[in-house]
Amino acid sequence: MAVGLKQPGKLLPVLGVRLSATHSGIKSNLDITDLVLVEISDSANLSATFTTNKFCAAPVTVAKEHLAKQTSIRYLLINSGNANAGTGEQGYVDAIACCQAVAERAPSLSVDKVLPFSTGVIAAKLPADQICKSIPRLFDSLDEDKWLEAAQGIMTTDTFPKAISEQVVVSGETVTITGITKGSGMIKPDMATMLAYVATDAKIEKSLLDALIKKAVACSFNSITVDGDTSTNDACILIATGQANVEINSESSHFIEALIRVFKYLAQSIIRDAEGATKFVEIEVKNALTIDDAKEVGYTVAHSPLVKTALFASDANWGRILAAVGRAKIEALDVSCVDLYLGGTCLVKKGIPDGEYREALGQLEMSKEEIKITVDLNQGQCNASIWTSDLSYDYVKINAEYRS
Amino acid sequence: MAVGLKQPGKLLPVLGVRLSATHSGIKSNLDITDLVLVEISDSANLSATFTTNKFCAAPVTVAKEHLAKQTSIRYLLINSGNANAGTGEQGYVDAIACCQAVAERAPSLSVDKVLPFSTGVIAAKLPADQICKSIPRLFDSLDEDKWLEAAQGIMTTDTFPKAISEQVVVSGETVTITGITKGSGMIKPDMATMLAYVATDAKIEKSLLDALIKKAVACSFNSITVDGDTSTNDACILIATGQANVEINSESSHFIEALIRVFKYLAQSIIRDAEGATKFVEIEVKNALTIDDAKEVGYTVAHSPLVKTALFASDANWGRILAAVGRAKIEALDVSCVDLYLGGTCLVKKGIPDGEYREALGQLEMSKEEIKITVDLNQGQCNASIWTSDLSYDYVKINAEYRS
Repeated sequence: MAVGLKQPGKLLPVLGVRLSATHSGIKSNLDITDLVLVEISDSANLSATFTTNKFCAAPVTVAKEHLAKQTSIRYLLINSGNANAGTGEQGYVDAIACCQAVAERAPSLSVDKVLPFSTGVIAAKLPADQICKSIPRLFDSLDEDKWLEAAQGIMTTDTFPKAISEQVVVSGETVTITGITKGSGMIKPDMATMLAYVATDAKIEKSLLDALIKKAVACSFNSITVDGDTSTNDACILIATGQANVEINSESSHFIEALIRVFKYLAQSIIRDAEGATKFVEIEVKNALTIDDAKEVGYTVAHSPLVKTALFASDANWGRILAAVGRAKIEALDVSCVDLYLGGTCLVKKGIPDGEYREALGQLEMSKEEIKITVDLNQGQCNASIWTSDLSYDYVKINAEYRS
Repeated sequence: MAVGLKQPGKLLPVLGVRLSATHSGIKSNLDITDLVLVEISDSANLSATFTTNKFCAAPVTVAKEHLAKQTSIRYLLINSGNANAGTGEQGYVDAIACCQAVAERAPSLSVDKVLPFSTGVIAAKLPADQICKSIPRLFDSLDEDKWLEAAQGIMTTDTFPKAISEQVVVSGETVTITGITKGSGMIKPDMATMLAYVATDAKIEKSLLDALIKKAVACSFNSITVDGDTSTNDACILIATGQANVEINSESSHFIEALIRVFKYLAQSIIRDAEGATKFVEIEVKNALTIDDAKEVGYTVAHSPLVKTALFASDANWGRILAAVGRAKIEALDVSCVDLYLGGTCLVKKGIPDGEYREALGQLEMSKEEIKITVDLNQGQCNASIWTSDLSYDYVKINAEYRS
């Protein structure tokens, strides 16, 4: 039931990145891949953001430890079907064991140059043995043209692989950006989303790369929500291999815009494929005093089960939107300043129903598959958009039957 | 689908309070009452709490204005089926008009001695004419024995009227407490719940009454949630008529305990009758640093759609509970201290899966209709309980079809 989401178009290789995917046996269906290896060239820089959930999964702990020791990461090992979260000391040992299995196959590679990632069921033991046995197969099939296979291998409840490529010309040279992501439930990233990997062949200094991932994540993965549930395993990785012989600086606006486009596309893909989604909804909050205020209002509307069920029903029950705005935890909301729009239709002007509004107009907007709600606070100059999905029978079905 | 909720037992009159209910025409079904009048004796004290939603409904604005002018309130006029919220200036005028119609029927009564309350659909014009025409009928049928009729008259999506009486002996005299409430969706009161009215014939000074309503609401209506959506119309009223000739003071522990029992019973009735509920769930958070921390953790678990769908499915997917605890916005959560119980079964000890735990044990607890989740933070001395419901197909159905 993905909303406006298609199979990815052509995915362009990124010089310095090779990938492979296999079936390791975590998932029962033999036809589905569940283990992905990403090899990164020696010269690459890498920046990462992780979940802020205090119960973070073992692989997140291990990845953070490795990044603290190493600037040069050479391999990412990603499994789907098992989150290795809530697994205690055993989970930590298992994550290390998987990294070790990768390190042993590569010439003189220390274990901390490998980052582990897991996504899937929480609180089940990771089948580390099966994963380790599959590592040789992954090395044998590494290829720079396997981004789609990688995108498929990290899927869980996703119904579509999510991936995109962009090329921009910087200083006369063509630079490629390719990214993949996964996720469709337990989505309210508070740092980065479930799993996302973006690589470019541009050369980008580590400090700038860190700044770019922060900037791009803020307006993409940190601006989406399905259910308000922040995952224990969220991770987002940005890789710059530097092999395109183009150096990016903080003034490279074409490149930075393209990078943000890729991040936004990937983040929005997650919402389009949100569990049970029948609508793709943007909540734009305008003229707030601060960005945090704008995001708080946007998220409060986006998380309201009553707004989400009205969206599912295509019911222009805008009183529920107003009620959600009214309970948002911001300091100084002046209700007599608030304007509310559904698409181009004004519902509320200065806090009271707009005289021109007719139910049929709201109904017309609500019946669309892609809906834009605009809340204008008329207080300041800060804007933010949050992307979300509706709450359908299928959301309940998918999550009630997840383990059965 | 109410969980463990029955028709109210015998409701005892409270000296100094008379009630009546009628069908005024707000609801289309002629057999259903939608308008209630409560008459309070001259000598009574009354305390009130209202929604903190900044888009509060017109009747809330009017009630607050009247309370600011008056200590002696004589009538409560309550309609169901229409919230008179999001109705702008017209809504305010309509609310006043209804109060005026009551004032005109009583000998030399000023309009500000009447408090209006509305509950139902947001953003529809209140049919004030129909309400005003019904006022004489309400006066003609006032009776001290009509608490059940009043409880029925304020219902919206409720499937049961919610009411209870308690008697306690104070200084050798019998004191009666009777209360009614309504609500089953848009429930996450942030001051008081949708609508609740509790009366006692005890004599209680205004300042003590204010303190008692605050204390009782904190551990009852302000500790429940269905969907996290704070209504625009929440109001809770506590009346002490003083006609039992017993004076309550801050040491009257029997009476205060009975009062809190009434508040808790009424608040929990709302959860038992929550929209689409198949489970009644208590989330007890123990040994937090502050009460606010305990409530934040409890509400984060209670609002998690993933926890709620697992509860609906009777699936002991406790990883979702842990993930919700981990994203709660409290300063200093130490995950290595957290214990988690389902009923009497320990799932997690000091942040990691308990060695004794078996899936069958968790399953046994989850299959019950009433479920208790205990989160022990082992950090401080503060405890709080939050009561909530599960997220079922019927919740989506009820809220998707609310206006159709």
